[in-house]
Amino acid sequence: MTPFYERLREAIRSHRSLVCVGLDPDPALMPEVGVLEFNKAIIDATWDLACAYKLNLAFYEALGIDGLVSMQKTVEHIAKPVIVIGDGKRADIGSTSRAYARSLFDVSGFDAVTVNPYLGTDSVGPFLEYEDKGVFILCRTSNEGAKDFQGLLASPSGQPLFEVVAEKARLWNTRGNVGLVAGATYPLELRRIRELCPEMPLLIPGVGAQGGDLGAVVKYGVDSRGEGVLINSSRGIIYASKGKDFATAARGAARQLRDEIDSHLARCAP
Amino acid sequence: MTPFYERLREAIRSHRSLVCVGLDPDPALMPEVGVLEFNKAIIDATWDLACAYKLNLAFYEALGIDGLVSMQKTVEHIAKPVIVIGDGKRADIGSTSRAYARSLFDVSGFDAVTVNPYLGTDSVGPFLEYEDKGVFILCRTSNEGAKDFQGLLASPSGQPLFEVVAEKARLWNTRGNVGLVAGATYPLELRRIRELCPEMPLLIPGVGAQGGDLGAVVKYGVDSRGEGVLINSSRGIIYASKGKDFATAARGAARQLRDEIDSHLARCAP
Repeated sequence: MTPFYERLREAIRSHRSLVCVGLDPDPALMPEVGVLEFNKAIIDATWDLACAYKLNLAFYEALGIDGLVSMQKTVEHIAKPVIVIGDGKRADIGSTSRAYARSLFDVSGFDAVTVNPYLGTDSVGPFLEYEDKGVFILCRTSNEGAKDFQGLLASPSGQPLFEVVAEKARLWNTRGNVGLVAGATYPLELRRIRELCPEMPLLIPGVGAQGGDLGAVVKYGVDSRGEGVLINSSRGIIYASKGKDFATAARGAARQLRDEIDSHLARCAP
Repeated sequence: MTPFYERLREAIRSHRSLVCVGLDPDPALMPEVGVLEFNKAIIDATWDLACAYKLNLAFYEALGIDGLVSMQKTVEHIAKPVIVIGDGKRADIGSTSRAYARSLFDVSGFDAVTVNPYLGTDSVGPFLEYEDKGVFILCRTSNEGAKDFQGLLASPSGQPLFEVVAEKARLWNTRGNVGLVAGATYPLELRRIRELCPEMPLLIPGVGAQGGDLGAVVKYGVDSRGEGVLINSSRGIIYASKGKDFATAARGAARQLRDEIDSHLARCAP
């Protein structure tokens, strides 16, 4: 069983890419084609340019049972070494989180998941037990509402909640399979998270449609080896065209993102 | 369209019960019978004793597509006025929470959901737009790990995070459809939540297998009319027997819980 960090490193190095493609099918934005066919075309067109795909479960669940079947088949379609992330932001009391872990890892076959920390240690534990799977804890999310609670200062340290979460995640990381979600839209918080957790992979949504600054993401996010980040773009890649050329357009957008990341990396190099 | 609070009141009054039956099918604990058959038998045996059923999505997802089909058919089997809660503890950035709301309310037909507040206002907004549906925000959960972040004191007010969440939930409640999740295992926190939100329905897990004190739940939880709480028991009711008499045993356990609640209510009456 290969530990998760090693699997992630292999995915990043073999495809020389920090790009994570978000597969979030929304019938209102998609070309006229079925979800599975859409996903497969996007995957086939971008696979060599990506280190990971992220499926946000909400978009599949919104399509009912058919959507979930498409999700399942999409996961099966993605060849190794690329990492497949089930972005469900789940968590519940321990015994219930165990059922979620079973569902996401054993039944659906995801390589990694996102987990919401609000319920604390025992809600995260069952996910952590899967040594070869990644567990990305929501730390500072990319949305406007992130500040409501994640930005709250704790007494007496004065640390914002997301930093308390980052430090807790470090304690949870006894198996080398914990990562953090840090939105591209909050570069200073991202920098702080990288300071607190120098070795942890960061899943970074929020470039593209959400307007995060890619230069800041690369500068503040990458680890000391210029790796350790998964920079996610969903809408910017998969909806690059609504026409028949959607897969070619997605490849173009993914390549552009990878190249832009590379040129920012070159600028950051010592 | 009947507002949610009114629907909940009708469910409680017509069945004269504050009992919420948790339908969390776990093959390791169930009698030898299919999930849908199991649920239907439990529902038919307890319907007149309950004001609500709560389906924890994790247990259905862990059974794959078949589990989700059973979940769907279970929801369809529960007759009004009883409230059906989809306990998924979901939330994501606004545009994604919209997909979750569609999935849970429009596709699956739940009357209410549980929502995790960590992502803040815009992550909760899309659920709130459904006026006739209930949105129970996780406030103080019933598990051990609840203290890790929910108990963190905010600076400079010194308020624990769960109180900050409760106050925020009050602001979110412009349509009369917001409730809170408050674990039976933390009676003092439950009392505080009721003080902060005197009019809000509380979904209270943690009696039964988790060991919460029913007397304290009734004393501190009910609103000024002796209502406003949904006291959930899952394992204590549905696994009352693993034999062929499981439905009868579930009825016995549900009736006992309702009667115990009634006698605590009688003691609390002014």
